[in-house]
Amino acid sequence: MAVNTYDAAYDLEKAIRNSSEYTNLKNLYDAVNSDETARKMFESFRNIQMQLQEKQMMGQEISQEEVEQAQKTVALVQQHEKISQLMEAEQRMSMVIAELNQIIMKPLEELYGNPNQQ
Amino acid sequence: MAVNTYDAAYDLEKAIRNSSEYTNLKNLYDAVNSDETARKMFESFRNIQMQLQEKQMMGQEISQEEVEQAQKTVALVQQHEKISQLMEAEQRMSMVIAELNQIIMKPLEELYGNPNQQ
Repeated sequence: MAVNTYDAAYDLEKAIRNSSEYTNLKNLYDAVNSDETARKMFESFRNIQMQLQEKQMMGQEISQEEVEQAQKTVALVQQHEKISQLMEAEQRMSMVIAELNQIIMKPLEELYGNPNQQ
Repeated sequence: MAVNTYDAAYDLEKAIRNSSEYTNLKNLYDAVNSDETARKMFESFRNIQMQLQEKQMMGQEISQEEVEQAQKTVALVQQHEKISQLMEAEQRMSMVIAELNQIIMKPLEELYGNPNQQ
């Protein structure tokens, strides 16, 4: 049975790779990365985002200043067309991934219940 | 393309549901739940575990006493045959899920890289 599970996972991998959400994301990602200004802007945004997430995960306090700095960076990158398109594509992709995960995790959810469900 | 992605996810869901890892887990879970003593023991273990995880996620400190209490509970439930079998089955299942996730997330990993990889 285990083989079937992995086969099914590889099929899903292929389906994700061929999905419009993924190809769109990949194209926009490449477009941002081949544009020096956009790439640097996006990288610095990512770094700030990751630093805040790390702090949050470590239970460290995030200052008002850091929050404002992050909000400014978001506002800035969103004005860049390619980057804002990429961010939208990322959001659509992660919504798809979340939906796929919900489908796949149904069997386990049936056993343990879903704490996120009302 | 989106339809294919969801079809593939439903196929994987079915494969997981039919896998020996899942059916074994389900049988042991039912066995523990139909045994009053085992069920209560396992529930109290789960509660302690969840409380500690919540504290950790909220960045709250976990006292030495709480750690010891949790370790005692683990040692206790592991002596119960059905529960220890269930815990092993859970571990095997989550290893499978982790492997499946690694397969499915390959396309995104290729774009963003995997911070967990060396």
